[in-house]
Amino acid sequence: MAKSETRIFRFQEGHSWKGVEREVYKSGQEEGRNWQGIVRQVIIGKSEECTTFHLRYFEITPGGYSSLEKHEHAHVVIAVRGHGRASLDARTYELNPLDTVYVAPWTPHQFQAASDEPFGFFCIVDSERDRPQAVSPTEADAAQAAGPLGES
Amino acid sequence: MAKSETRIFRFQEGHSWKGVEREVYKSGQEEGRNWQGIVRQVIIGKSEECTTFHLRYFEITPGGYSSLEKHEHAHVVIAVRGHGRASLDARTYELNPLDTVYVAPWTPHQFQAASDEPFGFFCIVDSERDRPQAVSPTEADAAQAAGPLGES
Repeated sequence: MAKSETRIFRFQEGHSWKGVEREVYKSGQEEGRNWQGIVRQVIIGKSEECTTFHLRYFEITPGGYSSLEKHEHAHVVIAVRGHGRASLDARTYELNPLDTVYVAPWTPHQFQAASDEPFGFFCIVDSERDRPQAVSPTEADAAQAAGPLGES
Repeated sequence: MAKSETRIFRFQEGHSWKGVEREVYKSGQEEGRNWQGIVRQVIIGKSEECTTFHLRYFEITPGGYSSLEKHEHAHVVIAVRGHGRASLDARTYELNPLDTVYVAPWTPHQFQAASDEPFGFFCIVDSERDRPQAVSPTEADAAQAAGPLGES
């Protein structure tokens, strides 16, 4: 495929970008991980762009959640729409628009919508990265027990 | 320096992130490039994060502009605050919040505020990248002549 040329992805109604596919994952599970109510848009990462990173936008519907997982690659998450809840290691944090999270390698993490509107966020990752893994039973218990909101 | 740990950068008043330095560049020039009225915040990229990319937030004051420049590395720009104008090659485009731009290698580019409020945007780049260069006289003339707004 030819290298991607300079291009503008217009933001449009429905929190989507013109020319970018909305991939809907109502629910699913894979290798011990499960998720619900997620829409993914890969803005940068599918067209042979000359970058060592990909830019994706995720939206989690109220009641939905990303999988509780861990991996070697780091995440950079920028909250954009609505309010979210991030489980990071054994603590829970509320995320409001433009709050930015650095998820270090191997940190168990999970995201949820925290209000009655979708929680939307950018997630930037290295273009070459390992596959997400299920967390250990101990890590799952710790995430489950994370009650009060952590301070940051 | 130790590798960075999981961390939340809280968005706060003044379009800034808690714990991130606001670097103010009132005006400057270097190697044939010049700029005016720019504030930079490096959110990811100064703390030994395990990513192959850096995340910066720039704000251009009304009347200000980034340097007209080109380089081998690509830019991904996400408009966040206010309204901007992007000169890309020999065309000009208006940018509104969440419009996203892929600036391919060697594309001459420049950003300006397009209203009476600051134009703020994220700019994501590879962590290893070449230095920006001044454009050629021909490229400068083309950027100067870019009159009507291009369609995207």
